[in-house]
Amino acid sequence: MKITRDLYQGSLTLLTDFYQFTMAYAYWKSGKAEQEAVFNLFFRKNPFQSGFTVAAGLDYVIDYCRNFQFSDKDLAYLADMNDGNGKPTFEAAFIDYLKDLKFSCDIDAVEEGEVVFPNMPLVRVRGPLIQCQLLETPLLNIINFQTLVATKAARIVLAAKDDPVIEFGLRRAQGIDGALAASRASYIGGCSSTSNVMAGQLFGIPVAGTHAHSWIMSFENELEAFKAYAEAFPDHTILLVDTYDTVNGIKNAIEVAKLLKERGKKLLGIRIDSGDLAYFSNIAREMLDTAGFPEVQIVASNDLDEHIMTSLKMQEASINVWGVGTKLVTAFDQPALGAVYKMSALKNEEGEWVPKIKLSQQSIKINIPGIHNVKRFIVNGKAIGDMIYLENLEEKEQVTIIDPIDPTRRKRISVANADSEVLLKPIFKNGEKIYSRPSLEEIRNRARNRLAAFDKTHKRLINPHIYPVGLEASLYEYRTSLVLKAKALENGK
Amino acid sequence: MKITRDLYQGSLTLLTDFYQFTMAYAYWKSGKAEQEAVFNLFFRKNPFQSGFTVAAGLDYVIDYCRNFQFSDKDLAYLADMNDGNGKPTFEAAFIDYLKDLKFSCDIDAVEEGEVVFPNMPLVRVRGPLIQCQLLETPLLNIINFQTLVATKAARIVLAAKDDPVIEFGLRRAQGIDGALAASRASYIGGCSSTSNVMAGQLFGIPVAGTHAHSWIMSFENELEAFKAYAEAFPDHTILLVDTYDTVNGIKNAIEVAKLLKERGKKLLGIRIDSGDLAYFSNIAREMLDTAGFPEVQIVASNDLDEHIMTSLKMQEASINVWGVGTKLVTAFDQPALGAVYKMSALKNEEGEWVPKIKLSQQSIKINIPGIHNVKRFIVNGKAIGDMIYLENLEEKEQVTIIDPIDPTRRKRISVANADSEVLLKPIFKNGEKIYSRPSLEEIRNRARNRLAAFDKTHKRLINPHIYPVGLEASLYEYRTSLVLKAKALENGK
Repeated sequence: MKITRDLYQGSLTLLTDFYQFTMAYAYWKSGKAEQEAVFNLFFRKNPFQSGFTVAAGLDYVIDYCRNFQFSDKDLAYLADMNDGNGKPTFEAAFIDYLKDLKFSCDIDAVEEGEVVFPNMPLVRVRGPLIQCQLLETPLLNIINFQTLVATKAARIVLAAKDDPVIEFGLRRAQGIDGALAASRASYIGGCSSTSNVMAGQLFGIPVAGTHAHSWIMSFENELEAFKAYAEAFPDHTILLVDTYDTVNGIKNAIEVAKLLKERGKKLLGIRIDSGDLAYFSNIAREMLDTAGFPEVQIVASNDLDEHIMTSLKMQEASINVWGVGTKLVTAFDQPALGAVYKMSALKNEEGEWVPKIKLSQQSIKINIPGIHNVKRFIVNGKAIGDMIYLENLEEKEQVTIIDPIDPTRRKRISVANADSEVLLKPIFKNGEKIYSRPSLEEIRNRARNRLAAFDKTHKRLINPHIYPVGLEASLYEYRTSLVLKAKALENGK
Repeated sequence: MKITRDLYQGSLTLLTDFYQFTMAYAYWKSGKAEQEAVFNLFFRKNPFQSGFTVAAGLDYVIDYCRNFQFSDKDLAYLADMNDGNGKPTFEAAFIDYLKDLKFSCDIDAVEEGEVVFPNMPLVRVRGPLIQCQLLETPLLNIINFQTLVATKAARIVLAAKDDPVIEFGLRRAQGIDGALAASRASYIGGCSSTSNVMAGQLFGIPVAGTHAHSWIMSFENELEAFKAYAEAFPDHTILLVDTYDTVNGIKNAIEVAKLLKERGKKLLGIRIDSGDLAYFSNIAREMLDTAGFPEVQIVASNDLDEHIMTSLKMQEASINVWGVGTKLVTAFDQPALGAVYKMSALKNEEGEWVPKIKLSQQSIKINIPGIHNVKRFIVNGKAIGDMIYLENLEEKEQVTIIDPIDPTRRKRISVANADSEVLLKPIFKNGEKIYSRPSLEEIRNRARNRLAAFDKTHKRLINPHIYPVGLEASLYEYRTSLVLKAKALENGK
């Protein structure tokens, strides 16, 4: 096993569940491999009891689809699979079929940085059944995680008010890409910088960092260590003051601030990484101000999340910059989003689209059938509701959206008096990329701008006001009739 | 950004925190870059309130260290960093220094699959300060996550008693490597197979899987879909029975079992992925037995973890194979281990090792100074206690181990009457790998065998009996004296 040689440098096409291959093989055997289908990727609940979610991961999905092809090594691995008695799992002709398989799907997706809600498709894949299936697992892996972290970051940035937030979760992240993708998603969600140098290199995210306790411990005493650090970075010194005793550390930092001042330089900041952050940040602020250094910033860290930060803000802690790691990059309080990927339509032999419904004992788990899209209505710059509708819907002057879970929650929207935007954008057409990728900076700006279009009550961190998202009335009725028909059919069996 | 081209194929040397570079630069400026130090990687609490932890990740660490070097691209990125006003962050001579930097550390580590406990070093790095620092973050990233998941897997496998456990978390894992590394760690922890085909390809883990609900939905009805699947896999058919109505699904599966029987084949199993697993598995068992198919296995899945599995076992659910995803690969109830990496000794200019202590207001956060190792004592094949000791400790007939947090917890061990094993094994010497890597199968066997050496009360999933791990008495006294000295010094300031 070689991380840097074998892993990730070639094809990622095998990064999928084995059952996608058993189904692919069985579709192929049944002559259904090329039958056209539509699948939607969506989630059923905002994470973290949030009132909103921030989409991320599309850029990885685009890469994945563009590189979708079986390498000789992949094919050899599949051809080599057997039942333990030497009988190959897959016929040789199927391996040949995979060899020639080219990505040819249409993909429509919500752009990265967009604000999204339960039940709406984030990614819609239309194409041959076999390709739709093989893509299921990698798409879920990518979108689930990055959307989760972008949302967590947005919440943390909201809690920080206008202060910068540094993401530094690399050491606790779930694996290498669990760190890199998290740094990227955190930046989309509004973080200002990352500690992860490789994320800086790959994605152009600003990197930040100062020194560790070990720096202090490698010197005779703290003051000497501070001086040596300031010597190396006279224009960018931030001193970690809590290696031994925080108050004494602040005193030593003030000594260094004075020395820098004599040289016409400024101490940039101090960092506190332990103890009571409200207490010590206020002591530090007072000591620094009294010593004539009101401009020295106070950086705080230590298992922070949006709730602790809100509490520190309410306590008027003197914190200017927030360092957030574990709780952000692992989405600690809910480490998986739980998005799913469900078939909603299948083309029959006559070339007609047949809507597909999957029943469930839990009505929240019944999918939305047909080929649909999402439209957001905006009045005076404020988002007022999102409508999930069948793509062939004719123009209407007024629409009603109905919550699929609680149909008594409805909203009537006057189309004529609202701006609107269709959220699923064309990304691939017949396997060709037709979407022009925005820069990461543009994506981050989109997230900020889109979030600004939502009423602050939807962005409340606890017990948020629920933003209206629903099925357009005729889609709602259509879905209900399909559910009833399917249930009657089932009982008839 | 290209996952498969730019990412992971070259150097991962920048996969570290920026503060490692600011410190590296400042060490270099201070003439301390080559000063020798010892750092230990350890955790302070077993995850999941477990009574034990299973080490994993060393194989990745070995790869990382062997590939440790700055590529031209890395160097260009670092050289290009500036303060925003065009002034380079690092002097050109430092970039040249990095260019010539070769990995030259000694690394001693606990082997993968070993059972480990709080406070003991899992990895000990001895080498130039600058290298020790740069390695901190990637080592923590790798070991933290893989150890966490191996431990979670071991707990889940314990809950499954002798039943096989399939890991299928790819779709909910935290990123690409969050999935691949998790599949590997899950296998180490005792899982039997993975759904992740790429993990199968890279690591040789057996892969498993059947079909999804979408398979059923792409046919006119469930029976037809079952038949088509059995046609493709007459020797390996497992049928997912809960797409529409579970009881009806079991009836249809029995139809297929009969058809297979007529052909001299056997239905391998059915899978239930929703609803009350205790209720439906017992109904399924009864229906299958009554129909003459007592050998058909029942696979269950749906947000399982060790606690739900234990409850299902207690309810005598008829489940033969367990599919576990999200809760395993994200270590859902505690998604980060929280291991740290602390300096414990530094060589002074006279070439003497000086022990290093880091005080803290929380005594659990005070590190263990000096260059130490761990010895496990075994009596009649059972582990009776682990001793953390200074490497220069002379042979003794009897030792006392003292819990560093609660010094009233002590245990006296008669060395003469016990077998013992030193847990830190030499991995690198002066940058050269001297460790022969075991196969993944050997690592998995080690985990199983080592776990077997611990009393079952230590492996209880809830409220386990605490296994004795402590500092050898003279190390304990030494540490206490250093703490008191440091505190006196601090107060004297």
